[in-house]
Amino acid sequence: MPWTSTNRIYAKPSNSSTGMSEPHARSNPPAKAATTAAEDSGGRFELSDHGYGKSSVKLLHVHRDGDRHAIREFEVSTELKLASESAYTVGDNKEVVATDSQKNTVYVLAKKHGIKTPEEFGAVVVNHFLYTYRQVVEAKCHVIEYPWERLQAGVPHNHAFIFSPTATRWCEVSQARHEAVTVKSGLSGLRVLKTTQSAFVDFVQDEYTTLSDAAERIFSTVVEAEWTYDNMKSADFDDAWLTVKDAILDKFAGPPDTGVYSPSVQHTLYQAEKIVLEKVPEITWIRMTMPNKHYLNIDVSKFPANVTKGDPRHYIYQPIDKPAGLIYAQLRRRPKSRL
Amino acid sequence: MPWTSTNRIYAKPSNSSTGMSEPHARSNPPAKAATTAAEDSGGRFELSDHGYGKSSVKLLHVHRDGDRHAIREFEVSTELKLASESAYTVGDNKEVVATDSQKNTVYVLAKKHGIKTPEEFGAVVVNHFLYTYRQVVEAKCHVIEYPWERLQAGVPHNHAFIFSPTATRWCEVSQARHEAVTVKSGLSGLRVLKTTQSAFVDFVQDEYTTLSDAAERIFSTVVEAEWTYDNMKSADFDDAWLTVKDAILDKFAGPPDTGVYSPSVQHTLYQAEKIVLEKVPEITWIRMTMPNKHYLNIDVSKFPANVTKGDPRHYIYQPIDKPAGLIYAQLRRRPKSRL
Amino acid sequence: MPWTSTNRIYAKPSNSSTGMSEPHARSNPPAKAATTAAEDSGGRFELSDHGYGKSSVKLLHVHRDGDRHAIREFEVSTELKLASESAYTVGDNKEVVATDSQKNTVYVLAKKHGIKTPEEFGAVVVNHFLYTYRQVVEAKCHVIEYPWERLQAGVPHNHAFIFSPTATRWCEVSQARHEAVTVKSGLSGLRVLKTTQSAFVDFVQDEYTTLSDAAERIFSTVVEAEWTYDNMKSADFDDAWLTVKDAILDKFAGPPDTGVYSPSVQHTLYQAEKIVLEKVPEITWIRMTMPNKHYLNIDVSKFPANVTKGDPRHYIYQPIDKPAGLIYAQLRRRPKSRL
Amino acid sequence: MPWTSTNRIYAKPSNSSTGMSEPHARSNPPAKAATTAAEDSGGRFELSDHGYGKSSVKLLHVHRDGDRHAIREFEVSTELKLASESAYTVGDNKEVVATDSQKNTVYVLAKKHGIKTPEEFGAVVVNHFLYTYRQVVEAKCHVIEYPWERLQAGVPHNHAFIFSPTATRWCEVSQARHEAVTVKSGLSGLRVLKTTQSAFVDFVQDEYTTLSDAAERIFSTVVEAEWTYDNMKSADFDDAWLTVKDAILDKFAGPPDTGVYSPSVQHTLYQAEKIVLEKVPEITWIRMTMPNKHYLNIDVSKFPANVTKGDPRHYIYQPIDKPAGLIYAQLRRRPKSRL
Repeated sequence: MPWTSTNRIYAKPSNSSTGMSEPHARSNPPAKAATTAAEDSGGRFELSDHGYGKSSVKLLHVHRDGDRHAIREFEVSTELKLASESAYTVGDNKEVVATDSQKNTVYVLAKKHGIKTPEEFGAVVVNHFLYTYRQVVEAKCHVIEYPWERLQAGVPHNHAFIFSPTATRWCEVSQARHEAVTVKSGLSGLRVLKTTQSAFVDFVQDEYTTLSDAAERIFSTVVEAEWTYDNMKSADFDDAWLTVKDAILDKFAGPPDTGVYSPSVQHTLYQAEKIVLEKVPEITWIRMTMPNKHYLNIDVSKFPANVTKGDPRHYIYQPIDKPAGLIYAQLRRRPKSRL
Repeated sequence: MPWTSTNRIYAKPSNSSTGMSEPHARSNPPAKAATTAAEDSGGRFELSDHGYGKSSVKLLHVHRDGDRHAIREFEVSTELKLASESAYTVGDNKEVVATDSQKNTVYVLAKKHGIKTPEEFGAVVVNHFLYTYRQVVEAKCHVIEYPWERLQAGVPHNHAFIFSPTATRWCEVSQARHEAVTVKSGLSGLRVLKTTQSAFVDFVQDEYTTLSDAAERIFSTVVEAEWTYDNMKSADFDDAWLTVKDAILDKFAGPPDTGVYSPSVQHTLYQAEKIVLEKVPEITWIRMTMPNKHYLNIDVSKFPANVTKGDPRHYIYQPIDKPAGLIYAQLRRRPKSRL
Repeated sequence: MPWTSTNRIYAKPSNSSTGMSEPHARSNPPAKAATTAAEDSGGRFELSDHGYGKSSVKLLHVHRDGDRHAIREFEVSTELKLASESAYTVGDNKEVVATDSQKNTVYVLAKKHGIKTPEEFGAVVVNHFLYTYRQVVEAKCHVIEYPWERLQAGVPHNHAFIFSPTATRWCEVSQARHEAVTVKSGLSGLRVLKTTQSAFVDFVQDEYTTLSDAAERIFSTVVEAEWTYDNMKSADFDDAWLTVKDAILDKFAGPPDTGVYSPSVQHTLYQAEKIVLEKVPEITWIRMTMPNKHYLNIDVSKFPANVTKGDPRHYIYQPIDKPAGLIYAQLRRRPKSRL
Repeated sequence: MPWTSTNRIYAKPSNSSTGMSEPHARSNPPAKAATTAAEDSGGRFELSDHGYGKSSVKLLHVHRDGDRHAIREFEVSTELKLASESAYTVGDNKEVVATDSQKNTVYVLAKKHGIKTPEEFGAVVVNHFLYTYRQVVEAKCHVIEYPWERLQAGVPHNHAFIFSPTATRWCEVSQARHEAVTVKSGLSGLRVLKTTQSAFVDFVQDEYTTLSDAAERIFSTVVEAEWTYDNMKSADFDDAWLTVKDAILDKFAGPPDTGVYSPSVQHTLYQAEKIVLEKVPEITWIRMTMPNKHYLNIDVSKFPANVTKGDPRHYIYQPIDKPAGLIYAQLRRRPKSRL
């Protein structure tokens, strides 16, 4: 008999069937007039959230100003929330702006307006959808920017670019009808490492602990950060993103000669968040996540000395992909009333 | 001169420096007594959320009962929220349960109790942390299960397994001090396709529309689903997961001979959610996301007939990775008071 | 000053420039008549290999025979080798069949002929290119098949399918002018695990060894296999692929009740290869690669007994992603002359 | 009945079994004395290639020279070919250097000697294996380097680094007993784009062609390059790698003000290879692969003018992930005898 591999290991035998065949008669002819989930379910259920859109609309914007060209490349996702539930309950599409049309709209708006920053383009997109379609109660636009840099050959190149993914920039812009645009921006995948000025000591020691105090350890992390703006008008989005990136690098690395001491990932993360709030007044709150990418000491004591003895300045560590520590915190400005 | 690629394309020139060097003097010696972010910042900022833990603790559980062995493989992540902020503000680790100890705990608890289901193991883990460490105000445990199936060679094999990733199972269990355990379960990556019984017609047509009505189209999606339980005690988590999976397949595919007509992804998604709430009374709400993975018709009319003419039963489509439509909805039981 | 990160850590200072600016004058006006690399370089260099094509042409083939539909989904790559080097040396494209036209050709041939198996479709493609374009000296076609299975609901579904990536099938077909078609087929990503009947003992022990003999260990691998056919005419490609897959499962797992003892990955790999050559006479040689995916014992002896004591049937292992052992071998039929 | 998804769509019914059960009796007790595959198979088969090793040994080397630290991070894979086939045929491991010991060896050699360049470390590793174990007939070492750069804050930082994956460096070093070390080096993932000075015209036009001549197009590629050295002694591996990278950037981009015209990917690729052979005399041959990452023009003519009219300097393109063109060529120095 041939091998087959049919059942998930915790699958029940077939006679404890989940009875898939019988409901068909019921479900095929949906109640025609039920335009809400509550009606359709006889008052038992309700849609508590719903939306739809186009994800990953890829787009390159080239601005050609004479010989000098500028580019920005994006993946744009859009989402609309409709007032009506009838697309769900009865398959009525008459208020549905097709996701294909949403894609067209992204291209057309980019052509018409260009793309100054991801955040401002997102605002153009959500404004457009709310203004154009009265059935839309909320619109969202998520933008990921590809990390292109202008090539340098002594001087900047007029039209050639290199992909330099040291960190990815993204934003999510949303707007509900009759409300202001909200903007969340983010930085993703900024990976750093330092070889000293990091410790982790005096933590809880109990019967589940096998780690010893480390007065000196490798510190490496891949930073994720996101933040919101309380005032879209005055913010300089490009400058803010670079400021956040620099703040993280600065608080992680410290001065070039001596560095800065880190007693824990928590402390370093908090220092970086604090300096961001101090430097960018438009940012309401910032949240960072820092995995602790472990680099273990290689214990060479289990080998004979003659096979390991060499220049004592060589240190060897084993990088560990999984597991990783994972630390996060969100720091926000305190409401004035609570000062 | 060598090529360098130093600046993100929207970088400011160096003289518009973000001034990273000067804050060091300020930030290096943190105020020793500031055990909260509010104190540390002179009342300007506060930590609005924070937590830390170990992510991606990989674990294989083998249950050996004579010759019959059973396995479940997981990636477990843990997270603790401490009452104190002093690890962040002053780098004081005395209340910090090291993420390494959290990893140890996952292994030790798995050894002691075994793993019946991911959800029940998650509850063991969060209970343990809250019970053992008074400084912990909330504990979370996220579990991803690897999709192993028992090999079949006519009959089930006693100890050999095959990786069958038709869908991934996961859950997230959390508990705050003095509160009940909450359980969210999920199914990820269930990819399906049908070649008929799908249409999309009568949607909005305007100047942004180029898509025509399609009375017949390929329908393919990769389902993500998540749901919560209102009663952890009575739920059969393995059975519920399989029921959700079967409900999706059933409402997507319909009867083996005729199938079931889908007027939109929205409608199919809603039908699947409704049958889940009908079949599993412990589920409070369910949320599904269904990308519309597009398969475009190949227009062969632009080629001479002689190069394309063949058996008319052959149809060729171009699968599109990006962009995709993206539809989601969350269906919940209506509170009794609102019936 | 802002942070920048301009130089790879082993970069030379700028004054050891690689002198990129000066060669432009030389290279911009290529010698017009140099149609080979040897000519163009004054006899110093020559093109030792070249080719071009289209990679990852995605394609869904649907065969609609009344209500019963069948599908196969592929990613097809094509490659042509031209006699001429002048596209490289002087940018002369007059013999270049555009990669866009190659893509069109894949779609048109699929429409005209359908796709019986990846191997046979590959042969159609390479034949077409050689027959149609006299400047082509060799054509290749690489096909990856997506692992769709027909949905089952008691009986097979007429038109609904599920993605079941337990193993991926691929093939590479090539043909040089005046030569026979050659076919290489492959199976990728077949992941298996067994919980007993695996050992690794009596290996070399020296001063670099820290591993002890393991009379009992977890054995898990992700099999890659590839093989060629010496006779394209008589081969049943679908059946051969399934035979290879079953042979691997059979020699890995053994009988459902007792299993089969593996003294090393090497031995198991060889057993699987041998049975393939015995079962499929058209296969000339087969090569398999089997990583040894390690699962380490969790040492609970470092914890107090009370925190680990439980049901002794629970065993916990730590799966390791990196590093992995990696074993391969190629087994071929012996030429008759050497028997 | 529950849904199951048991059979690959082209699976044969069970009664056309591949007969997996019966061979067990035969295969379990291997002929004890058959130390080669030829013997074991009664002269029918033979091992035409085999090897084994450890893949993805992760390693961070830190060189601490006072306050100034330098790092290089690698994934190292090793492979040994043994003279004996008995590990395969009879599971005899007595000549097998365990892959775990190979991993230990990588760490021990790195500790003892440090790592000057990936290529030189690879040579240390393969030399060691050949020297230490007489049963080894060939040893290989593959090294991938992680793209760390030293952080710059005005001046270079003493001990902090940033991950800058603009291109990955790798090498493969191998040595057979009584032969010289061979070194292949590579550069992977260098992604570039230019917005002008690229065309593709005058290619073959026939009934499979739908692409028109493009006198102006976006040119974007992700370069892969590999090359060998004919003289390991005199090569400066770090400098050579940077020279190759700069050569590619230079021939792709051209002078910063005017750029350089590309009539085809083929031509640009060849120009880059030629300059590498001219600049680095130790390189014997170089092979480059350049996908043509397509960026399609968005046709806005299908929309009313009022929805698209804007600043004419804005151009919008649709980046395409799949398919891509794929062009490669290998350029080598001509043997002297053929000059």
